[in-house]
Amino acid sequence: MSVDLAFDENELLPAIAQDTHSGDVLMLAYVTREALERSRETNEAHYYSRSRDELWHKGGSSGHVQRIEEIRIDCDGDAILYLVEQEGGACHTGYESCFYRTLDGEIVGDRVFDPDDVYE
Amino acid sequence: MSVDLAFDENELLPAIAQDTHSGDVLMLAYVTREALERSRETNEAHYYSRSRDELWHKGGSSGHVQRIEEIRIDCDGDAILYLVEQEGGACHTGYESCFYRTLDGEIVGDRVFDPDDVYE
Repeated sequence: MSVDLAFDENELLPAIAQDTHSGDVLMLAYVTREALERSRETNEAHYYSRSRDELWHKGGSSGHVQRIEEIRIDCDGDAILYLVEQEGGACHTGYESCFYRTLDGEIVGDRVFDPDDVYE
Repeated sequence: MSVDLAFDENELLPAIAQDTHSGDVLMLAYVTREALERSRETNEAHYYSRSRDELWHKGGSSGHVQRIEEIRIDCDGDAILYLVEQEGGACHTGYESCFYRTLDGEIVGDRVFDPDDVYE
């Protein structure tokens, strides 16, 4: 990689996923260097699951993978942007984007699948 | 606020700014509860500067403010999305977006101002 990356004290970088078709911001998660390398090798978005403490291939079990069109880095090298084509929906709640609510709690996103059908 | 927010151990939440006109992801920074409240009160994006360790009114000195159209929260309540109208450019380098480079270092963003003219 020709751009210096500023991983934090936990060896993580925040990573935003944006849908290239709709332009919607889908989610924010975190990557390790390994997750980023796996994303580049496979062209499917990988993250690091802080709750499960392991490498996370997004959609690996649900089928809701994110095919990567481009990976960008910000000016300070401390945040990543995945431009992706999202299969199904990004959010485990069934919404296309994890940002489906306003801060006041109003639902503004679209539900694209029923989580009961996807997760066992 | 009617949605529960999951501030981290440093009382911060990552906040993404997205341009409502172009759809471009402009930057990723962090907010405290105070920054978020100031954003709601003023309808201009506020963050918390970790390097300066203080409340940060984006564009307060450069004039490159971000007028907030909507604030969204993600499913887990641990990330914020500011939908904004960006005055000038978001990036201190003069680019419209901080994500103006690919991971390979290719410049893909547009430069919209000369930082030498804006910052003294």
